[in-house]
Amino acid sequence: MNYIGLDTYLLDALKEDIGTGDITTLCCVPEHETSTAVFRCKQAGVVCGLDIGKRVFALLDPSVAFTALVPEGTEVQVGDVVATVTGPSRSILSGERVALNLMQHLSGVATKTHGLAKKVEGTKAVIVDTRKTTPGMRVLEKYAVRMGGGTNHRFNLADGVLIKDNHIVAAGGIANAVANARKIVPHTLKIEVETTNFDEIRQALDAGADIIMLDNMSCEDMKKAVELIGGRAKVEASGNMGTRDVGEVARTGVDLISVGALTHSVEALDISLQFQK
Amino acid sequence: MNYIGLDTYLLDALKEDIGTGDITTLCCVPEHETSTAVFRCKQAGVVCGLDIGKRVFALLDPSVAFTALVPEGTEVQVGDVVATVTGPSRSILSGERVALNLMQHLSGVATKTHGLAKKVEGTKAVIVDTRKTTPGMRVLEKYAVRMGGGTNHRFNLADGVLIKDNHIVAAGGIANAVANARKIVPHTLKIEVETTNFDEIRQALDAGADIIMLDNMSCEDMKKAVELIGGRAKVEASGNMGTRDVGEVARTGVDLISVGALTHSVEALDISLQFQK
Amino acid sequence: MNYIGLDTYLLDALKEDIGTGDITTLCCVPEHETSTAVFRCKQAGVVCGLDIGKRVFALLDPSVAFTALVPEGTEVQVGDVVATVTGPSRSILSGERVALNLMQHLSGVATKTHGLAKKVEGTKAVIVDTRKTTPGMRVLEKYAVRMGGGTNHRFNLADGVLIKDNHIVAAGGIANAVANARKIVPHTLKIEVETTNFDEIRQALDAGADIIMLDNMSCEDMKKAVELIGGRAKVEASGNMGTRDVGEVARTGVDLISVGALTHSVEALDISLQFQK
Amino acid sequence: MNYIGLDTYLLDALKEDIGTGDITTLCCVPEHETSTAVFRCKQAGVVCGLDIGKRVFALLDPSVAFTALVPEGTEVQVGDVVATVTGPSRSILSGERVALNLMQHLSGVATKTHGLAKKVEGTKAVIVDTRKTTPGMRVLEKYAVRMGGGTNHRFNLADGVLIKDNHIVAAGGIANAVANARKIVPHTLKIEVETTNFDEIRQALDAGADIIMLDNMSCEDMKKAVELIGGRAKVEASGNMGTRDVGEVARTGVDLISVGALTHSVEALDISLQFQK
Amino acid sequence: MNYIGLDTYLLDALKEDIGTGDITTLCCVPEHETSTAVFRCKQAGVVCGLDIGKRVFALLDPSVAFTALVPEGTEVQVGDVVATVTGPSRSILSGERVALNLMQHLSGVATKTHGLAKKVEGTKAVIVDTRKTTPGMRVLEKYAVRMGGGTNHRFNLADGVLIKDNHIVAAGGIANAVANARKIVPHTLKIEVETTNFDEIRQALDAGADIIMLDNMSCEDMKKAVELIGGRAKVEASGNMGTRDVGEVARTGVDLISVGALTHSVEALDISLQFQK
Amino acid sequence: MNYIGLDTYLLDALKEDIGTGDITTLCCVPEHETSTAVFRCKQAGVVCGLDIGKRVFALLDPSVAFTALVPEGTEVQVGDVVATVTGPSRSILSGERVALNLMQHLSGVATKTHGLAKKVEGTKAVIVDTRKTTPGMRVLEKYAVRMGGGTNHRFNLADGVLIKDNHIVAAGGIANAVANARKIVPHTLKIEVETTNFDEIRQALDAGADIIMLDNMSCEDMKKAVELIGGRAKVEASGNMGTRDVGEVARTGVDLISVGALTHSVEALDISLQFQK
Repeated sequence: MNYIGLDTYLLDALKEDIGTGDITTLCCVPEHETSTAVFRCKQAGVVCGLDIGKRVFALLDPSVAFTALVPEGTEVQVGDVVATVTGPSRSILSGERVALNLMQHLSGVATKTHGLAKKVEGTKAVIVDTRKTTPGMRVLEKYAVRMGGGTNHRFNLADGVLIKDNHIVAAGGIANAVANARKIVPHTLKIEVETTNFDEIRQALDAGADIIMLDNMSCEDMKKAVELIGGRAKVEASGNMGTRDVGEVARTGVDLISVGALTHSVEALDISLQFQK
Repeated sequence: MNYIGLDTYLLDALKEDIGTGDITTLCCVPEHETSTAVFRCKQAGVVCGLDIGKRVFALLDPSVAFTALVPEGTEVQVGDVVATVTGPSRSILSGERVALNLMQHLSGVATKTHGLAKKVEGTKAVIVDTRKTTPGMRVLEKYAVRMGGGTNHRFNLADGVLIKDNHIVAAGGIANAVANARKIVPHTLKIEVETTNFDEIRQALDAGADIIMLDNMSCEDMKKAVELIGGRAKVEASGNMGTRDVGEVARTGVDLISVGALTHSVEALDISLQFQK
Repeated sequence: MNYIGLDTYLLDALKEDIGTGDITTLCCVPEHETSTAVFRCKQAGVVCGLDIGKRVFALLDPSVAFTALVPEGTEVQVGDVVATVTGPSRSILSGERVALNLMQHLSGVATKTHGLAKKVEGTKAVIVDTRKTTPGMRVLEKYAVRMGGGTNHRFNLADGVLIKDNHIVAAGGIANAVANARKIVPHTLKIEVETTNFDEIRQALDAGADIIMLDNMSCEDMKKAVELIGGRAKVEASGNMGTRDVGEVARTGVDLISVGALTHSVEALDISLQFQK
Repeated sequence: MNYIGLDTYLLDALKEDIGTGDITTLCCVPEHETSTAVFRCKQAGVVCGLDIGKRVFALLDPSVAFTALVPEGTEVQVGDVVATVTGPSRSILSGERVALNLMQHLSGVATKTHGLAKKVEGTKAVIVDTRKTTPGMRVLEKYAVRMGGGTNHRFNLADGVLIKDNHIVAAGGIANAVANARKIVPHTLKIEVETTNFDEIRQALDAGADIIMLDNMSCEDMKKAVELIGGRAKVEASGNMGTRDVGEVARTGVDLISVGALTHSVEALDISLQFQK
Repeated sequence: MNYIGLDTYLLDALKEDIGTGDITTLCCVPEHETSTAVFRCKQAGVVCGLDIGKRVFALLDPSVAFTALVPEGTEVQVGDVVATVTGPSRSILSGERVALNLMQHLSGVATKTHGLAKKVEGTKAVIVDTRKTTPGMRVLEKYAVRMGGGTNHRFNLADGVLIKDNHIVAAGGIANAVANARKIVPHTLKIEVETTNFDEIRQALDAGADIIMLDNMSCEDMKKAVELIGGRAKVEASGNMGTRDVGEVARTGVDLISVGALTHSVEALDISLQFQK
Repeated sequence: MNYIGLDTYLLDALKEDIGTGDITTLCCVPEHETSTAVFRCKQAGVVCGLDIGKRVFALLDPSVAFTALVPEGTEVQVGDVVATVTGPSRSILSGERVALNLMQHLSGVATKTHGLAKKVEGTKAVIVDTRKTTPGMRVLEKYAVRMGGGTNHRFNLADGVLIKDNHIVAAGGIANAVANARKIVPHTLKIEVETTNFDEIRQALDAGADIIMLDNMSCEDMKKAVELIGGRAKVEASGNMGTRDVGEVARTGVDLISVGALTHSVEALDISLQFQK
C-alpha cells in the first residue's frame, strides 16, 4: 500500500473527527498512560483495511504500535481478533473512531464482493466494481474489492474509455465514437462500448470495440450476445447486478459482471476495539 | 448550506473521478454542444443532496444551470423528477457521476432516517446519529439525517463530552470523570455519561451528568432507567439500534435513540440522470 | 498537545518567514556546525508555548533537540531559562523567529489571563475567553488561556449556541429563538442568551436558557441579575471586561467573566534566544 | 491588494470560526432575510483592513456587498462609520467576527505605527517594522504598517541580508560574513550588519555594508555612530524601540527606527458591526 | 480544457512569481490604469497554451480580458500576434511572466512535436510522448504534444501497464509478468512489454502482450521485428528517438515512436507581451 | 537544502506520476524484494539534484537509502556513477521516474550554466538567471544555476525592484519611478532600471539607480555604457544572451549577464538508473 495519495485523506478524516481537540479524553485520561486494545470482529465476513487502520494511528501518533494478526482479505468469524494496538491511551482513544469507520466500511465492501465472487466460482466470470464509489474513498474501496476477490474496472474517467448512450448520440453513432477514440486516446487503453440490443452489439463489433457492455439484458439475451460476439471482444454484464442472481448471469458466458452496489450500498462489518485490562 | 468547509471535499471528489481528463467525453462530444438532463428517482424514498449536486456542477463549470424541483427532504416516488441540469454536454457528462454518487448516498441516509423517525412518531423520542460516519462526509451525512427527520449528536470530539467506559476507568470512576470535565471543558457543552447498569446510572446522576446514555439495555431495563432518572438528565438509548424495534425503545420513555447504522450502513437511493432528446 | 490540526499552520508560518531560503544563514554558517542556545525570559510573566516552539523546530529539522525546562503555564522571572535547543546552527537560526513569535505571543496571552484570574480568586467566577482571537491561532490562544488559569468559551460557531440581539430580532423574540435552537442543535450543546436588561433576563429564563449573558451592565445591575436568576442558569458577565475591575464584577456573583482583550490585545512576553559560546 | 497569496489564509480563518456550521444563525435567522449593517469605530485611531474585511465577505458569500466609506489609513474618531455591508443576514452574521478580528487588529497596527510616525516627523527617520509579526499575518501586518505611515523592513529571510551576532561568529568576523554574502546573494539585495559598538561599526563600514544596524545603543552613542558612518551606509536604530522615545532617537540622525512592538504587541482598535433597523 | 485539476498548479505558479507582492508595479503603476497588450511571436513554430495563459490571468484578476486570436496548435510566423489582453495594467504586468513562461514552454513542446510528426507523415507511425515530463506539468505537456500533432502514451503509472526489464526479472520472466498483470489490472488497460531482442519479442507474443516496445534497436532489427510480430501486437519504437531519424524509424513499419525529448529537452518558443501605446 | 517549501511540490510530482497506483510494479515485483541500483551518467556535464532525488525517495518510502557519491555541482563524464539507491524494489521502481526527471532537468540547467560561466572566466562578469523559469521549479532551478557556477537574480516580484519600460511609462519617467520605489520598498532592496539607450542610462544614474540593465545593446554600446556609468551603478547585460557570445559581452566590462535560456530552454542531462544484478 502506497500512502502518497492517501495520507491527505486520512489526515482530513482525523481532523474531521477530532475537531479542535478530543476534550473528553483530555479531561479523563492521564497524559502518560498507555494501553493495549484489540480489534475484535462481532460479525463474520472478510476483513479489509487493517493497513489503513495502522496508517491512521501512525499519522495521529507514531508512538502507537498497530499489529495486524491476519492478512488483508481473511475470512473471519464472530469473536476473531484481527489486530492489536498498543501505545498512549489518549492516542488510541482519539484515533479509534476513524480507524474503525474505515475498517468497518472496507470490510463491508470486501465481504459483499466475496459473497458475489463465490456465486460465480466455476465460471469464467469475475465480479468487477464501478465508479459508483464513495467520494474520497475510490482507491480504498477498489482495494477492498480486490481483497474480497473481485477485480477493478477503470479508476476514473481518464484510465478507460467507456462509450455510453449519450456519447454515441453526440458522436453520431457507434462507428464514429470508436473511431474518434482510437485517434485520440493513449494506445494503452482499451475501448468499451455500452449496448442494449443486438444491433448495437453488431455495430460495436464492426467498429472494433475491445469490450462490449451488455446493459440491463435478460440472461437469455446475454447468452445470445455472448455467442454473437464469439470471443471478438470481452463481454461485461451490467445493470442492477446487485439484486440479480449473478451465478445465473455468469453462466451466460460473460467475462465480467459489474456491480455498483459493491460500493454504493455497503453494510459495515461490525468490528469493535476492546481495551485489555 | 455554507460551502466554506465543503468545497475542498467536492473538488477532491471531482478530481478523483475525472483524473487527468474525461477522455471518452472529449473524444465523442463536441465542445459547444449543450444539453438538458433530468434527475429521476428510480426508487421511492426521501431525496437529499440536491444542493450538493448543484454545487458539484457549479464547481466544475459555472455555466451549467442546476435547478432543484423539490425541496431537500421531500418524499419521492418512483419516476419523480427532482432536478434538471442544463449546459455544455461535456460538463454535464463529466460531473454526472460525482453528483449522483453524492445525491444517491445522502438520499439513502435521509431515507433510512425517515423510516426510523416514523416509527417513533407519537413518542417524545427522536432519532439521532453518531460519529460512525463515512470519513470526509460527516457534515453532509449529518445534514441528510436532519433532512430525514432525525437530529444530530455531536459533530466531533470537540463539541460534546461523552464519557465512555475507558474514560471512566482511566479517570478513576464516574464522579472523577465528570468533575474533571466540568473544570476544563467550555461551559457551553453538556456532559454525557455512558452507562450499562443501574449502579452506573446512579453514579452519573450523583455526578450531575446532563445526559445519560443507556448502552445495550433491554427495553425493560431502559424503562426502569427512565423512571430512576426521573427527568434529572436527558436519556439516550444506544447499541445496535439499527436492528432493534425503535418504536418499542421509544415507548420506554427515552429522549433520544442513537443509530450508527443511519450512516455506516447506507443503501443508496437509485437516482439516474436522463438526457432529454 | 495533538498536532493533527496544527502542523499546517506551523508549516505555513515557517514558509512565511523563510520564504525562498534563509540566505544570511546560508552565507555565514557552515552546514555541519552545531550549537546550543537557551530561551531566556527578559520579562516576568507566565510562560506558554514551549510545546509549540518544540514542534516548530521538529517540523523544520527533526535533528534539532528542544528541551523544555519548566512546565507550560509556569510563572517566570526576568532571567529564567525556560528551554534549550541543540542541533545544526543553521536550523536553529532559521527557526528562531517563528518559535519566538509564537512563544512570546502565547506567553503574553497566558500572562494577561493569569493577571485577571488572580483578581477573581476567592470568588466562584472564572475568566473565560471569546472568539475575538487572532485568525489562525484560535486553538493555540485558547490553550494559552487555560495555561494562564482561565477557561474556554466556545471554540467556533458550531460548538455553542449564543443567541445575540440580532438573532433575537430575526427569530421574533427570545422565546422563539430558544425554542428553534432546542429543536435543531445537537442535544450536547447548552443554549446561551445575551441580555441587556431585566426584562430580557426574565424572557431568557422563561425560555429555559442554560446560560444568560449580561452584556455591558453595571455591577449593581449584575448583582440584581444574579439574584433574579437564582441559580436557574449560569451567568456570564461580558462587555469591555478588559478595562473594568474584574474583581468587583466577580463579587456580584456571576459565574463567568468573558474578556475579549485576553486575545485581541496581547502584549508579547519578551523572551530571547541566546547562543551558548 | 492582490489576493493570490491571501485567500487561503482568509478561508482558513473563516473555517476556523464557522467550524461545522453557524448553528445559532441557522436556527434563528430565516434563509432569505437580508440586512444592512455598518462598521462603526468605538475608538479613535487609524483604520486599516477595510479591503480585507471586504474580501472576507466576498469569499464567504459573493452576494454580500461591502462598501468602504473611507480610504485605508484614514484617521477616525469615535462614532465614525467606515464601511457598510448589505446582503443575506445569515452571511453577514457568520462572517462578522472574522472580518472584525482582522479589521480591529490591522487598525491596531496602523494606529500604533501612526503614533510613532508622528513623533519622528520633521526628522529624516522613518519607522520600520520587523519580522516579529503574528504568524500567518505578515503581509497583512506589514501592509498595516504602511497604512499607518511606516515603511517595511524585509518580508522574510530571503529578501534581505541581515548579519547578526551569531552569523558573524559563525562566519569568522564581519569582513568574512559580508564577503560571503556578496558572493552568493542576488545582486538586488543590500547587506545589513548588526553592530553593538564602534569597533563593529568600523568593521562593517570597511566590509562595505550597505546598512548598519545600531543595536540597543544609547542616543548619545547613536549620534556618534551616525557621525562615524558619515553617510557611507544607511543607519537603522533597533532594540526596545517600542518603549523608548523615538523622537529623541530620530534626532540622533539615524535613517530608520525599527520597532518590533508595532506588530508583536498590538492593541485592537475597537470597531463594531451594527445592524440597521 | 477542464481546470479542476489545473488551477492549484497555476495558482502556485502565480504565488511563486509574485511572492509577497509585485512591488515594482505597486510603486510605478496607478491602481486604476488600464492597458491593452498583445502576445507576439518572435520565432516561427506551433503556438500552444493560449487557454492556459487566459486561465492564469482569470485566476489573478477576473477583470482582465484575454482573447486568443488563433486556435491552439496553429503554425505561426515571426511577428504573428496570437492573443490580446486588456485590463488593469497592474494585473497584466503581475501576470505577464507566468503566462509567458507557460505559453513559451508549451509552444516549445508543440513545435518540437510538430517537427517530428512532419517527418513521419505518409507512414502509419505516430509520435508519442513519455513520462519524461516536467514535474507538475504532465497534463499540460501532453496536451501540447497533441496540439503539435502527436498522441499520448500513458499519463501515469496507473493508466497503462508497461513491463520493463526489471519487472520481468522480478516476476520470473515475461510469461509470468504478463499473466500476473492480466489477473490484477483493470480489464480496460492494455499490456505492453519492453523487449530488446527477438527472443523477448517471441516471449511477449506468446504471453499475449497487446503492445511490444522495441528498445534501442537498429532500424534493420526493427523491420524484422515488425515482420515477426505480424500485426499480432502494436509495435512501439523507443530509445533516443529525439536524436535519431524518426522518418527512417517510421518506415520500418512500427506503429508508434516514443520520444522523451519532446518534453525533457524543450526549447521555449520566443513570445513577448507588448503593450499598446 | 531546506525542504519546508519544497516537499509539497515533490509530493505532487510523485502523485502526478503514480496516480492511483503503480500497477505494473504491483503485479510483477514481490512486496518484500529489495534491490540496489545506481544512477549512471550517460552524458558528460555538471550533475545537480542529488539532494532532490534523495528527498523524493525519502518522501515516497523512508526505508529507501539514497547515497550521493559526488558533491552537487560536480563535473561528470559518460559512465560516472553519481549515486546509489538501496531498498524495497517496488519503491525504487515507483520513484525512479520522478527522481530522474528532476535530476536530469537540474543537471541540464547546471550544465548549461557551467558552459557559459566558463566563457566569462577571467572577466569580472557573472552569469545570472532570470524569472524565465519553469513554473513550480524556480527555487530548484536557481539552485542548479548556483551549482553550475552562476548567481541568482531576484527570486520573485517581491525581492527585487526592476523598473522596465512599461513601469517607466506608467510612472511618468525614470526619475519618478525610482523616487516612488525609494519611498515604498523595503530599504533592504536595491533598485534596478532597464535601459535601451544612453539617454535612459543617464536618467537612471541621475535618479540614483543601484543597478542599470542594458537591454539588447550591441557590445560596442555596452562598452560605452560601462564607461558612462563609471562604477556608479552595477551593470547588467540582458537580451538574447543565450544565443550571443557571452565572452565578448563580458569583455565590455559589465558586471552581470542575465540569461533566460539557462532555465527556459534546458536540455536534460542523460542519467539512467541501473539495477545491480
